Amino acid sequence: MDFSSKLLENAVNEMSRLPGIGKRTALRLILHLLKQPKDNTKYLSEALLHLRNEVNTCEQCHNISDTLICDICSSSKRNREIICVVEDIRDVMAIESTSQFNGKYHVLGGKISPIEGIGPQNLQIESLVNKVGSGEVKELIFALSSTMEGDTTNFYIFKQIEKFKITTSTIARGISVGDELEYADEITLGRSIVNRIPFEQSIKG
Amino acid sequence: MDFSSKLLENAVNEMSRLPGIGKRTALRLILHLLKQPKDNTKYLSEALLHLRNEVNTCEQCHNISDTLICDICSSSKRNREIICVVEDIRDVMAIESTSQFNGKYHVLGGKISPIEGIGPQNLQIESLVNKVGSGEVKELIFALSSTMEGDTTNFYIFKQIEKFKITTSTIARGISVGDELEYADEITLGRSIVNRIPFEQSIKG
Repeated sequence: MDFSSKLLENAVNEMSRLPGIGKRTALRLILHLLKQPKDNTKYLSEALLHLRNEVNTCEQCHNISDTLICDICSSSKRNREIICVVEDIRDVMAIESTSQFNGKYHVLGGKISPIEGIGPQNLQIESLVNKVGSGEVKELIFALSSTMEGDTTNFYIFKQIEKFKITTSTIARGISVGDELEYADEITLGRSIVNRIPFEQSIKG
Repeated sequence: MDFSSKLLENAVNEMSRLPGIGKRTALRLILHLLKQPKDNTKYLSEALLHLRNEVNTCEQCHNISDTLICDICSSSKRNREIICVVEDIRDVMAIESTSQFNGKYHVLGGKISPIEGIGPQNLQIESLVNKVGSGEVKELIFALSSTMEGDTTNFYIFKQIEKFKITTSTIARGISVGDELEYADEITLGRSIVNRIPFEQSIKG
């Protein structure tokens, strides 16, 4: 792409470093900003800078938080004996939106992925093992995505905490509520048959 | 969406004002920035701010340019008698990449669109009419997209410059090179039959 302006070229190059944003998309977004009042660009830039420079993670669960200890970890209403292990803040938000979980979280910050160069030492695994080792945790729920990396991470953590003899579980995999069986993939359908639950339990909601 | 951090929420809100970027996408992009070095966010923010605050348009063609008069307008190799009327910088870049046009451009900055509240006074139409009126332009090529707004804008400009008796043309519409006829829409195929060109002309490339 041949730009008539170095300033524009520079902005497009920086914007197109974001994942899934190509040069054409970046140019479209930036031309949009140029048509809007200057303040919009100012607010966007400042919001990004503030976040990046001042972002904090909760000391206990490592979720993004403005305070030293996040609202969930500091809440006396949440059960500190059940810990849900997730990859990042999006998973916490997704689970919170179901209102079905009353325990606390532990945000790993990613999954073990040799291809991307992410090893156990890059994730919040040691602090999780210490938390379990301290004896106050009774159940650990693994809620990582069921990919090769997710399964590897689950297994790695499981091996580390096995000795503490606590309950471990993973979230149920199966056919989505409302989905037709015929369109489900075989692995999911297979798992949902193997891990079938008592009918009385299913009608409780 | 319930965020655990005001800083994060603010950044996501600002990012999701961009066209085609929803809150989920904004969150994904911002989490990416948080995993990258702080400098990446700094460079992006600064590039956007610099561009927005210092952006300049060429005095003659109104294209985005770092100089008072852009490279194309100041080039002595370009034919100043032929002006190609386009909507924005992306069209200039697209036409320039073909290397088939040796004239100059006039960037309107948009199309007449009553729905979006864009009237002729919001576009660089008056300066185009003055340019044509000065007598140095011999041909005007309309290269706006062939939408309702594009056609309206073409027609509005045509009415304003009709009195100057210069040549006007629009870029050819037809089947894309390499496309199968059977998949073309009827309007495009219809136009390409009505506006057929002598065979000898077509094989010149």
